[in-house]
Amino acid sequence: MTATPPPLSHTVRLTVRFKESDLLGIVWHGNYVTYLEDARQALGVQIGLSYEDFMRQRFAAPIVDLRLQYKRPAKYGDKLDVTASLVWQEVPKFVHRYEIRRSSDSELLTTAETTQVLLHPDGSLALNFPPFVEAVRERWRRNEIKVAGKTETSPFG
Amino acid sequence: MTATPPPLSHTVRLTVRFKESDLLGIVWHGNYVTYLEDARQALGVQIGLSYEDFMRQRFAAPIVDLRLQYKRPAKYGDKLDVTASLVWQEVPKFVHRYEIRRSSDSELLTTAETTQVLLHPDGSLALNFPPFVEAVRERWRRNEIKVAGKTETSPFG
Amino acid sequence: MTATPPPLSHTVRLTVRFKESDLLGIVWHGNYVTYLEDARQALGVQIGLSYEDFMRQRFAAPIVDLRLQYKRPAKYGDKLDVTASLVWQEVPKFVHRYEIRRSSDSELLTTAETTQVLLHPDGSLALNFPPFVEAVRERWRRNEIKVAGKTETSPFG
Amino acid sequence: MTATPPPLSHTVRLTVRFKESDLLGIVWHGNYVTYLEDARQALGVQIGLSYEDFMRQRFAAPIVDLRLQYKRPAKYGDKLDVTASLVWQEVPKFVHRYEIRRSSDSELLTTAETTQVLLHPDGSLALNFPPFVEAVRERWRRNEIKVAGKTETSPFG
Repeated sequence: MTATPPPLSHTVRLTVRFKESDLLGIVWHGNYVTYLEDARQALGVQIGLSYEDFMRQRFAAPIVDLRLQYKRPAKYGDKLDVTASLVWQEVPKFVHRYEIRRSSDSELLTTAETTQVLLHPDGSLALNFPPFVEAVRERWRRNEIKVAGKTETSPFG
Repeated sequence: MTATPPPLSHTVRLTVRFKESDLLGIVWHGNYVTYLEDARQALGVQIGLSYEDFMRQRFAAPIVDLRLQYKRPAKYGDKLDVTASLVWQEVPKFVHRYEIRRSSDSELLTTAETTQVLLHPDGSLALNFPPFVEAVRERWRRNEIKVAGKTETSPFG
Repeated sequence: MTATPPPLSHTVRLTVRFKESDLLGIVWHGNYVTYLEDARQALGVQIGLSYEDFMRQRFAAPIVDLRLQYKRPAKYGDKLDVTASLVWQEVPKFVHRYEIRRSSDSELLTTAETTQVLLHPDGSLALNFPPFVEAVRERWRRNEIKVAGKTETSPFG
Repeated sequence: MTATPPPLSHTVRLTVRFKESDLLGIVWHGNYVTYLEDARQALGVQIGLSYEDFMRQRFAAPIVDLRLQYKRPAKYGDKLDVTASLVWQEVPKFVHRYEIRRSSDSELLTTAETTQVLLHPDGSLALNFPPFVEAVRERWRRNEIKVAGKTETSPFG
């Protein structure tokens, strides 16, 4: 019997922009979707599941489900640590869980989850993981994937 | 015994912008949050629960939960009919359900739900609906609220 | 000698969104670029020079110059009338001039100008207007293009 | 006679996001306004002229003029070096000049300029630099302001 491989996690640090906060100095709720994507993509680049990897293989991985729980507001000027964790799946989809914490005191502000399916180049739903994803999963299963453990400044600006 | 008042619904029609679609001609998933807000706000203006109504009363109604299910992609150039329905609640929160349909053939593309809580002017959680909301609920209960039934072009651009 | 054909103008009306204003209740300056595009595209759809028209012909018309003068701030809740005017050019480029006025009192808030060049399907600069643009220019020269004179709600939301 | 103090410059490096590129893989022209703001704000934080500095003093510095020249397109996946340079002014306004270069080969993609005026807490136009800005100018004049010379990853994400 094999244990489920643990999630692959990565954290990016970003600063809330002036334009992202509203009249009340609070980040507009839709802006968090970008924060999630920044962390997911930064993780994907490290493990071989970035947008570029998918495009190179002519596969697409559209988001089919998005959930966000807003516990405390992020405010203008806050630094945020956004952690994306890819959770092992047996069926061909990607599920990421997220935590957004205020950097100054690690207060948990937001949790989220996204689900992606895989589409073949012809747009049909993939019923199996394609080879390039299987290769990543094999390394994951063998615990051979190393993700930068420490928080890094988001490469997106 | 009183039946639960039916949802209050309103539909806005909008056109997908060039800048809202990605490399694949598909709307980026985060842009739908704006579509939802446009429909929710257009409904709110009609029933007395708009952003302005809340600000005037110095209450806030932050979104605490957001869920989106993407069934089929909206594409560049599509016209979309976005319906927001405010669902009756006994406790002081607002729950809206949404449907986004392609105008040309009424195909259902996206469903969504948002939950908002109410905050007093001092930022504390409201444990009862404030009077200006109760007044709306009273009219709702009496079936006195008329919402424009037909689809209108979104006032937001 | 032929007189220069007068500009082709169209006005869209839009409402400033909550998310478009900042801490001070003032629209963030970058958001106006979208307002300009909404008016330019609404004009383009009417005269046969929309994004779709260009894509169908496999030509591109990238913006190479953008200028904005902000005279008075647009604020949350304002309705804005955005007028785009395509100005006749002898050489293969498109120049639009813009005025953004507050709908309530016609106060001029912003003026702007964009310049676009034309690129062939292979990405090279067009040194002449392509036939589908020449056809529009011929109708323009003959004063055969009718643009909706009255302000319409922006189709973009 | 005193020479004009040289510009104060700072460069941030950012990565073009998937959502920032269009159908053609090219960054939508309006997104550059955010890139400029990221560089300007990162410079402002270092020299004491950030949004926070202005808010603390209850002054505002709205942008009144924005110009962008697009020479070559930024594309999805490009890393960009965005340099903001504050140019010395004798009269109470701020003028920044910008260069956006592709990091891989230093190709110049975009140049830009923004002009800001200063508003007193009551909203009236400042006819002199306020004391907190004069303090910065005095240090600038004496060549006492050190800005991080090397390119840093943008703190905004």
